[in-house]
Amino acid sequence: MNKRIVLRQRPEGLVTWDDLAIEEAPLPELADGEALMEVELLGMDATVRSWMSQADGYLPPIEVGDVIRCSGIGRIIATRCDAYEIGDVGYSLPGMQTHAIVRDDFFTTKLPPDTELAPMLSVYGATGLTAYVGLIEVAKAQPGETVVVSAAAGATGSLVGQIAKHVLGCRVVGIASTPEKCRFVVEELGFDACISHRHDDLASSLKEHCPKRIDVYFDNVGGPILDAVLGRIAGGARIALCGAISVYNERRKPPGPANYLNLINLRASMIGFNAMDHWERFDEIREVLRGWVNEEKIQHVEHRFEGLESCVDALNALFTGANTGKVVVAL
Amino acid sequence: MNKRIVLRQRPEGLVTWDDLAIEEAPLPELADGEALMEVELLGMDATVRSWMSQADGYLPPIEVGDVIRCSGIGRIIATRCDAYEIGDVGYSLPGMQTHAIVRDDFFTTKLPPDTELAPMLSVYGATGLTAYVGLIEVAKAQPGETVVVSAAAGATGSLVGQIAKHVLGCRVVGIASTPEKCRFVVEELGFDACISHRHDDLASSLKEHCPKRIDVYFDNVGGPILDAVLGRIAGGARIALCGAISVYNERRKPPGPANYLNLINLRASMIGFNAMDHWERFDEIREVLRGWVNEEKIQHVEHRFEGLESCVDALNALFTGANTGKVVVAL
Repeated sequence: MNKRIVLRQRPEGLVTWDDLAIEEAPLPELADGEALMEVELLGMDATVRSWMSQADGYLPPIEVGDVIRCSGIGRIIATRCDAYEIGDVGYSLPGMQTHAIVRDDFFTTKLPPDTELAPMLSVYGATGLTAYVGLIEVAKAQPGETVVVSAAAGATGSLVGQIAKHVLGCRVVGIASTPEKCRFVVEELGFDACISHRHDDLASSLKEHCPKRIDVYFDNVGGPILDAVLGRIAGGARIALCGAISVYNERRKPPGPANYLNLINLRASMIGFNAMDHWERFDEIREVLRGWVNEEKIQHVEHRFEGLESCVDALNALFTGANTGKVVVAL
Repeated sequence: MNKRIVLRQRPEGLVTWDDLAIEEAPLPELADGEALMEVELLGMDATVRSWMSQADGYLPPIEVGDVIRCSGIGRIIATRCDAYEIGDVGYSLPGMQTHAIVRDDFFTTKLPPDTELAPMLSVYGATGLTAYVGLIEVAKAQPGETVVVSAAAGATGSLVGQIAKHVLGCRVVGIASTPEKCRFVVEELGFDACISHRHDDLASSLKEHCPKRIDVYFDNVGGPILDAVLGRIAGGARIALCGAISVYNERRKPPGPANYLNLINLRASMIGFNAMDHWERFDEIREVLRGWVNEEKIQHVEHRFEGLESCVDALNALFTGANTGKVVVAL
């Protein structure tokens, strides 16, 4: 049997079990070109919450009644697809379910059979690709520049900060929810400083920790934090817009960043990007990241939940600030 | 005697004669390296208003008591500077005065003596450079793309739309204050369509006139118009941020564009720029623009005021929507 989580109604605010249902269904029959994956690990991303809303995103919304779309990794247990043999390990978008049909398509990548699974969802998965692309290709961070990253203790933010600090040699200032997370990214990951946006005054803290202003901002959160950073950017600053976790749960669209006016005076730019656009370079970039992990320049940080039933808590952890590192759900 | 307009107090809202004073003073003695320009024509730009406020811009604020900084053109009538001879014509930032000291510096360009003066402040001046740089170098508009430009009947907007339409072969939709201006840019300048933001519903008009959404937006106004355009951008859209004329007179900073979130989903970017950064290419770009004028692809549009005393009306025309084309003041 396949156990799966489907959308019952579009959530408002944080997701609850009123919005979702767990169903059981027989394992599907495979058509030609399909393989069956037994899912071992699911990856939680803020974008999953946005897919539950009606608004258009880079992928269409999840329809009511459909399985909740999310990334995951698992092993092929049956196949009618030439690309997969039984026992193959694959990274895909299986959704919140124990068994998923995968195809030889854009969203699915075959991995070496001895792959350690958890890092494949973070540093070697879309998270790592996102951090690399946003920091290096989009924001073009340079040695010696001041880089600020929000959701600094999160999956993407923790990688961005580590790459900026230990690979590029930037000054790196994180922004995170709690003082505990700030201590973690400074003491464990080596950031130069970290600001707790729940406890510190953002504007004065940014001034203190970014004496030469901000050259690069990797934005995961949007909202008032983006606005505060825009108030402290340097000439020619590049803001890589990765996400806006602060607004995905909002019923009404919050005000935009009034300080966007600084973009004009300071010849700065805000650039939306999506790592999906660089999917064809995934293998190449993964090897670069693997080199940095092997040189101990960056480390994988994981926050693990157990069981399909933990998916709601796991997803909400991204928004309540309960997680440190990549949130995964082991099935 | 030199007649000049100085800042008496920082204005709130539209500038009035309470904020400025006309003074007369003896012509200055020249030091080595200086020349005296008799100003013939002043150019009004929205940025002049922003310089009267305390806020930092790309140039420092005008101090109380100082001459109001603005662009202008005139003839050298005395010189102790090797770069200028008596009779030379120069483009500079003389400010609102009949006589100005100029130097051989960044802000001053010597022009051929037979130069027709008015176009030097618009199509062959910073206005033309701004239109060219913003549309072609910053937004990288391509043939067949949909280009929207605000303040479409203004000095910069009218050039942007003409270049996009008649040089690049884009679909061009203007946004202007009044139906009269809309008729002007469509019938006289050849835009495909123009929306009056005072009379038309912006969102539905943008939908109607931009059926393939918006690839390039050249923003002169900021505020709710920028937000509406962000609501209709295409994937990979580029927004060249040139100015924010809608906010320069505001006492409080208005809300930012809530639809900036579309930048993320649509991998779009907002890029602040300033033509000053391309000053060293001024001569080269001016020749390109001259070619287009000679081929009758673009035309110079001018709105002329007479006399130093008309400077307040001339400047305010930019904000009240009273002008069509480049606002100049003939002295």
